[in-house]
Amino acid sequence: MARFEKKIHAEGHLIDSDLLSDVMDRVIREGSRFKIIDLQVGKTNEDPSTLEMLVESDTGEQLTALLQELSDFGFVPVEMEDARFEAAPAAGVVSEDFYSTTNHATEVFLGGEWHRVVQQRMDACIVRDDDTFRCVKLRDVEAGDLVLVGLSGVRVIPEYTPRDRSNFQFRGNEETSERQVRLSVERVAGMIRDVREAGGRVVWVPGPVVIHTGAAPDMTALIEAGFVDAVLSGNALAVHDVENAFFNTSLGVSTKDGQVAHLGHRHHMRAINVIRRAGNLPNAVAQGVLTEGICHALVKHNVPFCLAGSIRDDGPLPDTEMDLIKAQAGYAELLDGASLVIILSTMLHGIGVGNMLPGSVPLVCVDIHPAVVTKLCDRGSAQAHGIVTDVGLFLHLLRSALCDDSKS
Amino acid sequence: MARFEKKIHAEGHLIDSDLLSDVMDRVIREGSRFKIIDLQVGKTNEDPSTLEMLVESDTGEQLTALLQELSDFGFVPVEMEDARFEAAPAAGVVSEDFYSTTNHATEVFLGGEWHRVVQQRMDACIVRDDDTFRCVKLRDVEAGDLVLVGLSGVRVIPEYTPRDRSNFQFRGNEETSERQVRLSVERVAGMIRDVREAGGRVVWVPGPVVIHTGAAPDMTALIEAGFVDAVLSGNALAVHDVENAFFNTSLGVSTKDGQVAHLGHRHHMRAINVIRRAGNLPNAVAQGVLTEGICHALVKHNVPFCLAGSIRDDGPLPDTEMDLIKAQAGYAELLDGASLVIILSTMLHGIGVGNMLPGSVPLVCVDIHPAVVTKLCDRGSAQAHGIVTDVGLFLHLLRSALCDDSKS
Amino acid sequence: MARFEKKIHAEGHLIDSDLLSDVMDRVIREGSRFKIIDLQVGKTNEDPSTLEMLVESDTGEQLTALLQELSDFGFVPVEMEDARFEAAPAAGVVSEDFYSTTNHATEVFLGGEWHRVVQQRMDACIVRDDDTFRCVKLRDVEAGDLVLVGLSGVRVIPEYTPRDRSNFQFRGNEETSERQVRLSVERVAGMIRDVREAGGRVVWVPGPVVIHTGAAPDMTALIEAGFVDAVLSGNALAVHDVENAFFNTSLGVSTKDGQVAHLGHRHHMRAINVIRRAGNLPNAVAQGVLTEGICHALVKHNVPFCLAGSIRDDGPLPDTEMDLIKAQAGYAELLDGASLVIILSTMLHGIGVGNMLPGSVPLVCVDIHPAVVTKLCDRGSAQAHGIVTDVGLFLHLLRSALCDDSKS
Amino acid sequence: MARFEKKIHAEGHLIDSDLLSDVMDRVIREGSRFKIIDLQVGKTNEDPSTLEMLVESDTGEQLTALLQELSDFGFVPVEMEDARFEAAPAAGVVSEDFYSTTNHATEVFLGGEWHRVVQQRMDACIVRDDDTFRCVKLRDVEAGDLVLVGLSGVRVIPEYTPRDRSNFQFRGNEETSERQVRLSVERVAGMIRDVREAGGRVVWVPGPVVIHTGAAPDMTALIEAGFVDAVLSGNALAVHDVENAFFNTSLGVSTKDGQVAHLGHRHHMRAINVIRRAGNLPNAVAQGVLTEGICHALVKHNVPFCLAGSIRDDGPLPDTEMDLIKAQAGYAELLDGASLVIILSTMLHGIGVGNMLPGSVPLVCVDIHPAVVTKLCDRGSAQAHGIVTDVGLFLHLLRSALCDDSKS
Repeated sequence: MARFEKKIHAEGHLIDSDLLSDVMDRVIREGSRFKIIDLQVGKTNEDPSTLEMLVESDTGEQLTALLQELSDFGFVPVEMEDARFEAAPAAGVVSEDFYSTTNHATEVFLGGEWHRVVQQRMDACIVRDDDTFRCVKLRDVEAGDLVLVGLSGVRVIPEYTPRDRSNFQFRGNEETSERQVRLSVERVAGMIRDVREAGGRVVWVPGPVVIHTGAAPDMTALIEAGFVDAVLSGNALAVHDVENAFFNTSLGVSTKDGQVAHLGHRHHMRAINVIRRAGNLPNAVAQGVLTEGICHALVKHNVPFCLAGSIRDDGPLPDTEMDLIKAQAGYAELLDGASLVIILSTMLHGIGVGNMLPGSVPLVCVDIHPAVVTKLCDRGSAQAHGIVTDVGLFLHLLRSALCDDSKS
Repeated sequence: MARFEKKIHAEGHLIDSDLLSDVMDRVIREGSRFKIIDLQVGKTNEDPSTLEMLVESDTGEQLTALLQELSDFGFVPVEMEDARFEAAPAAGVVSEDFYSTTNHATEVFLGGEWHRVVQQRMDACIVRDDDTFRCVKLRDVEAGDLVLVGLSGVRVIPEYTPRDRSNFQFRGNEETSERQVRLSVERVAGMIRDVREAGGRVVWVPGPVVIHTGAAPDMTALIEAGFVDAVLSGNALAVHDVENAFFNTSLGVSTKDGQVAHLGHRHHMRAINVIRRAGNLPNAVAQGVLTEGICHALVKHNVPFCLAGSIRDDGPLPDTEMDLIKAQAGYAELLDGASLVIILSTMLHGIGVGNMLPGSVPLVCVDIHPAVVTKLCDRGSAQAHGIVTDVGLFLHLLRSALCDDSKS
Repeated sequence: MARFEKKIHAEGHLIDSDLLSDVMDRVIREGSRFKIIDLQVGKTNEDPSTLEMLVESDTGEQLTALLQELSDFGFVPVEMEDARFEAAPAAGVVSEDFYSTTNHATEVFLGGEWHRVVQQRMDACIVRDDDTFRCVKLRDVEAGDLVLVGLSGVRVIPEYTPRDRSNFQFRGNEETSERQVRLSVERVAGMIRDVREAGGRVVWVPGPVVIHTGAAPDMTALIEAGFVDAVLSGNALAVHDVENAFFNTSLGVSTKDGQVAHLGHRHHMRAINVIRRAGNLPNAVAQGVLTEGICHALVKHNVPFCLAGSIRDDGPLPDTEMDLIKAQAGYAELLDGASLVIILSTMLHGIGVGNMLPGSVPLVCVDIHPAVVTKLCDRGSAQAHGIVTDVGLFLHLLRSALCDDSKS
Repeated sequence: MARFEKKIHAEGHLIDSDLLSDVMDRVIREGSRFKIIDLQVGKTNEDPSTLEMLVESDTGEQLTALLQELSDFGFVPVEMEDARFEAAPAAGVVSEDFYSTTNHATEVFLGGEWHRVVQQRMDACIVRDDDTFRCVKLRDVEAGDLVLVGLSGVRVIPEYTPRDRSNFQFRGNEETSERQVRLSVERVAGMIRDVREAGGRVVWVPGPVVIHTGAAPDMTALIEAGFVDAVLSGNALAVHDVENAFFNTSLGVSTKDGQVAHLGHRHHMRAINVIRRAGNLPNAVAQGVLTEGICHALVKHNVPFCLAGSIRDDGPLPDTEMDLIKAQAGYAELLDGASLVIILSTMLHGIGVGNMLPGSVPLVCVDIHPAVVTKLCDRGSAQAHGIVTDVGLFLHLLRSALCDDSKS
């Protein structure tokens, strides 16, 4: 039997990030074999390790396929070939063999050195402008753009989560309801305070359940206290927030006493009509029509927000962006440079955000449905923290932890 | 075609309890027909209605079967036959045709009058002692006991929930997480206070999740404040409460900081061993070995409790009753005369309690899993109130509502 | 105390649809009182009932509010006032007091007679053109349109579900996983066959889980066999269907052996690129690029479909409508005249469809998450049937029931 | 600052089982430090690795605590001390410092060599009889038994899951409903066939949902075909199976047409009464009273079963063991030597089984609730395989895969 082999190397936290173990798995699963040539394990926790290993397959195709997979772990041939680029044949169309990105930091090898890709995001093309390499969404590629093809000359830099007591236990089994939520609240409050102190931005992605569960005043307080740097959501959050501001109901149910209000099921359409008459949310605030709630606070405190439309939207509010190309651009702009993203009970917008966000940005996801938390946190990133609990109570406690003088 | 018919009558809140509607459904579903002979609707909300109707079937068997069903709604023949009784052939064995009870108030017709059955519970036999008719579990029937057979001469008195604002909205869609839990907390607090003021008993059925979610101090405070008249649970609640009292962990996870404790997975067995050495929970309290937590408070405040064993029990604690015949008797004794039952995150013990409880006793069921709430509340009773939320946060808020001076 | 009263009347299945009971509840809850003046109960199952009752409140405002609520049940004053209309002040803006519709059949009183509203849908305005009254979405109202305001002269015609064995047991506790799904499959197959035989249209609303769970061949077979008259979905269904057609994977997981495919996470972007190059799905089929799967079958068999964009969409496919105003129009067009709608594991599109659909159109909703089924079926309509099960297995069995000769 | 250090070593699949990574985590989390002295990585997939490392702490207590933790990973001091034993002071009571076992293979160091512990199970004591060391439940320890105390001289042998394609992909994200269940069915069928061919025993743990979902005939067929070596369950499975055999209903719902049967809610008590009259299940089969269903097949084919009682049991059947000490013994006996355990929709019995089972025995857990699957599979073992799906459909397909000639 013929034998095809290649010497590859890697450097970094190979053992503590389970990289070496994952790579070994991959080699065997693909029907190939490995031999460790040299492994220098970091003697202490801070030291990186270095590895040289030989991978061996039965066919050249197998070996090529395997090497492509290993580059996703940062394991690349010792003798690296340059990355290859092909001009896009038409706008929004690229070569069949194009390289589709992950949400992890990525480097391109060209002219004997590695170049870091900018504007990292998932499922994008890598476009070359001289010595700059940037992620571009498929639909935004222009005819003639030089697009990375194949898998040679590209590697992913795996995230490394430092072993640190305070963060360590957040992950893993956290995605269960059998935990003490008040401790998670304190940890999230700590993360938010840390980001604020470091001058970072906290982006919030709340769903309408925030209003239904009576947490509108809590979210409003967090905005007023300056803990909210941007809000990404949809039409329903704003509609029910405005409904609540006008009628003290959410989907017709009183947020004061939990009763179904008189003719309450008509409130949300009436609320929409009022905002439409004013022109939009900022006008409604300026005209004194809208005087409380989340939307009011966002406008008053100049916190930018983007409401993405959806097929189920009533109305919608004039502020809701029903052109989703524009809505995605709006989301991306507000996510740019985010230091922390907090998703509250909305799978739809949460997935949208996850698609745009580099894996290195910490993400907190709170939902009462474990399946939603699992799905949103399953992004190949150590930075996703899931909390299964009642969102209304969570926000209520978080506001106490962050805003109440007596507790701070 | 032959025609078999019977004139039946009923009295009560026939329309507002949907009884008449349900009975009409049943008649048609069974392939029979009805004719309303006379319906006197209560003119106002307080007035009962009276009805006489003719039901008609194609065969005598159909008619008999139909009449049997309608007696469960309190609709009985105008000319009533006496109930029939047969002696049990052996201990725990009765005639094939025995009447198996529901959890609703039931009456037996004998000697020209209706007699109310006592000790009402679900799935029991009705045993006659002269003029007394009582529910007896199948296994407790003695040879020779006179057991009601067939369906003649027996009727169920349907519950009537008065139309009253405060309770009305509790049911129905409440079994969703898209509601404001703080309002439910206030309502449950109000129910508890009402029961206390009326001299009634509140029986609690907490699962071990109460400890895992960090609510042991809250439950303890409720016991100390006198809001707990009995506790029905299993081995796990007590084991993790004691583990928490000794080690500040629950299943090895710190209830102080949420971290997995050093060798924490061994804590619960060590806790069990300590209690076994002391003899049992009361002895451990008396000896000063156990000084805090739910079990400590129960013993100190003489609140009776019953811990039913299960196949998954570790240890168990000496206080856990592993003979389930005895455990069911213990539960039944503590439930006797209960005015309110609160089930917290335990399907197993919750179903056990539901089986023993008359339908007229209000039941509050709190769980983060909607399916559990649905199952526990699906008992043919308007008295079951479901709340889908995080149990730890719920208890924390309930304790604030009931125990904090500033709020009372 | 002053007393304000009004004589109202109603006709129809007042008791068996629980209408009278609901109306009584409402009167008491609103702090008012009722007196039954005359109730003629239908003597048999087929006969409608007629009612005259007096409602009485302490204030004129209370009485007006109450009458407004009761008109939603079809209970209206004996002496009816004409409906009132006001011209819309601007496009998409109406009087504050406008009447917002339900999804139930509605009638408008004008010139001494009742007129049935056409194009019934939820949350719309009612616009008058001479003797025609039609539902118009708020955003589609034009300046000057005559829009119904207030609640006088309008009534809802409550649905009446005939008591019929075959349908009766479908509802209620069906929203549990503790049922035999094969029986539900047979019932849904029967409903589909009945609709086909009657010349009706079956509209399907499948989510991408249909592909993930391996049911693409089943859905394809149903299309080919003519059981699918329209498909409403989003980008993800089509993307993963095409990914599956090209690569035998769905989100990178093999639909042949369940393994994560080599570089599989890049497949969906490659699939999108191929379709973009072809132009769109119909072109890809015409060019022989796309040769199997759901999208292929839809194109080949001229089954219309509409893919609504969402904030989480990758790509999207050129066929996905990212302008949601157009997407909602596309959905509405395909839903027009639907006889049966089947929603498969997609809350987003399911809610969108529910918003547009009259309450009289039967809706089947299949999902493994009980909360989704509950939400989609909670539409004030006896026509919503929920099934909690694995969607992949459900479709597999449904295809066997409908398409296999041996079983038909 | 003082420095306390110890040289430890380990051997095995240190990298591919993530052991080294886990141990490094643990050292840092406990506030200690490590230095790798020598690491010989297996050059190829088959070769084990060997490691010598120095761990260093600030206090002697820290170091001792750390060493105790590391012995759970098989990392032990180079210079090993003998294990220590203390006589139990009373029956069911041991020294406070006793060693509580995990479900993984364990070894005890005494007289210069390592001894494998027998009858491995979780949460047990280790009792010495000369050169034999066995797991004994706390309550079964007799006064004077020599019980292992402290953590010196004991190590856990971590499981090693060979990297093998067929098993590899089963775990991990399998605990989601967004997968193709038919592939999982085939894999479980393959596991069962492999066990049968190797002469092993398959133990089944079905819950009553098996009957409710209409899978009684499927489970029966699997018993008849010889794929079931033991059944562990509770009263409810047997009650509803017998109810189904007698009345074609389960909890009163017809398993033929899904309708609520006439007086169906009384069927299960009637079924219990019939079996009680016959004496028990085997007698009912012998007398020709019980002629079909799961229980009938178990008796006919001499398949041993154990029904553990619970607090929620009606009846119970005479065959249900209400003394849980005896029920746990019965379970343990039937689990002894099991090669594969299949848990079907029962958290209660599933946890009971998990507590008794060595981690090396493969476990398949099928449930429609993801939280149950997560909980049952979270046992520190690579051998737990979770499948989120409808249990009735799963069993139906599994029976086809295993029993139908046409498919084998």
